[in-house]
Amino acid sequence: MSPISIAFLLFPGVTQLDLTGPAQVLSRLGEAKVDLVWKSRDPVMTDAGFAIMPTTTFDEIKEADILCIPGGVGVTSVMMDEDAMAWVRGVGSTARWVTSVCTGSLILGAAGLLKGYKATSHWAWHDNLSLFGAEPVKARTVFDRNRVTGGGVTAGIDFAFALMAKIRGEEHAKMIQLALEYDPAPPLDSGSPEKAGEAIVAAYAERMAALAPNRGAEMQDAAAQLGFS
Amino acid sequence: MSPISIAFLLFPGVTQLDLTGPAQVLSRLGEAKVDLVWKSRDPVMTDAGFAIMPTTTFDEIKEADILCIPGGVGVTSVMMDEDAMAWVRGVGSTARWVTSVCTGSLILGAAGLLKGYKATSHWAWHDNLSLFGAEPVKARTVFDRNRVTGGGVTAGIDFAFALMAKIRGEEHAKMIQLALEYDPAPPLDSGSPEKAGEAIVAAYAERMAALAPNRGAEMQDAAAQLGFS
Repeated sequence: MSPISIAFLLFPGVTQLDLTGPAQVLSRLGEAKVDLVWKSRDPVMTDAGFAIMPTTTFDEIKEADILCIPGGVGVTSVMMDEDAMAWVRGVGSTARWVTSVCTGSLILGAAGLLKGYKATSHWAWHDNLSLFGAEPVKARTVFDRNRVTGGGVTAGIDFAFALMAKIRGEEHAKMIQLALEYDPAPPLDSGSPEKAGEAIVAAYAERMAALAPNRGAEMQDAAAQLGFS
Repeated sequence: MSPISIAFLLFPGVTQLDLTGPAQVLSRLGEAKVDLVWKSRDPVMTDAGFAIMPTTTFDEIKEADILCIPGGVGVTSVMMDEDAMAWVRGVGSTARWVTSVCTGSLILGAAGLLKGYKATSHWAWHDNLSLFGAEPVKARTVFDRNRVTGGGVTAGIDFAFALMAKIRGEEHAKMIQLALEYDPAPPLDSGSPEKAGEAIVAAYAERMAALAPNRGAEMQDAAAQLGFS
């Protein structure tokens, strides 16, 4: 197997499973090196109350075979961060695979990397893809040429196995699926708005309105400031 | 909702998704505090090539509502670490829920916390539970009184939702399942030995024999040294 470099953007407020799920899978691509990249090597606080260490910085890594952008409440701050966006654009311009999980696709979009591409995102943010010239597609993983986008949070695991099968073949992906015992059996069946039903969707909307009341407006402002309209 | 404290053991060589999967879910129990605990606050290297920061140390946290032990190649080293085992025994003796993911159940067993309890582990390590007086049960999540054990790696997500439903009720768990878009759709169907088939199981066994040839003997030695026989 030829070596593969994988660069994840790590940022304050990342939904850590958006990153740690696919990082677990992709670290087993075989001859693979996973980097978590941010502007310094200081610990980066995640949404779950603990911090993850970057392995390197924007200055030290300028290209990768796979670029992967996770999502989270920090995405609009990333969009407004010129260093971060310059790095995403730069690595994204030459990466073999330009990828995201959850609302990370909105960062790819804000970097101009999804114009004219089919893409997906967290179900509640799906429509925002069109702000950035992408074509929203409802699917767990969307491949369009070398852009590969995953749905919300846990979709990152399905995304990573789909990408692994494409790069290393199904036999390797099956072995790693067995190693990670990925035979999911959710004890409840509420993982999409359709399955959850109206009452649960309303409870979720209420929770989000309390936690981040301005997220929608912030995203539209960010898109406008970056010249999308 | 009453506050709930959740303490994960973090250790060198942890399979990071064993921890980060359930930590993502359980951080949303509502009024929950997640701690990652090790002997110092220095970064702890995981199996995936990046480090995670402990939030606190053995000296600073002596009890928790939920104790959760992840697994990984570092488990036998943890079993031989007197500080770590004393902490696991101490917190485990008073925790409302004593839990594990993957081979973390073997650490619980080595701490004497699974004697006479039904439990599960990563499929390839399942039989080792009996070394420590536990009764191996093949299931994604096993509840026995206040012991809750999950299967290999990705089973930690199912485990965490099952525990969340028990503690906070199904409505809350369904809302968080929707938030994390946990509607898994593996692109391949190879997550158990039965589904993977003989050729993939043999390829996995060969890989493990190359990566960690002495794991089985090390586990038996650890059990013997700790007085299990």
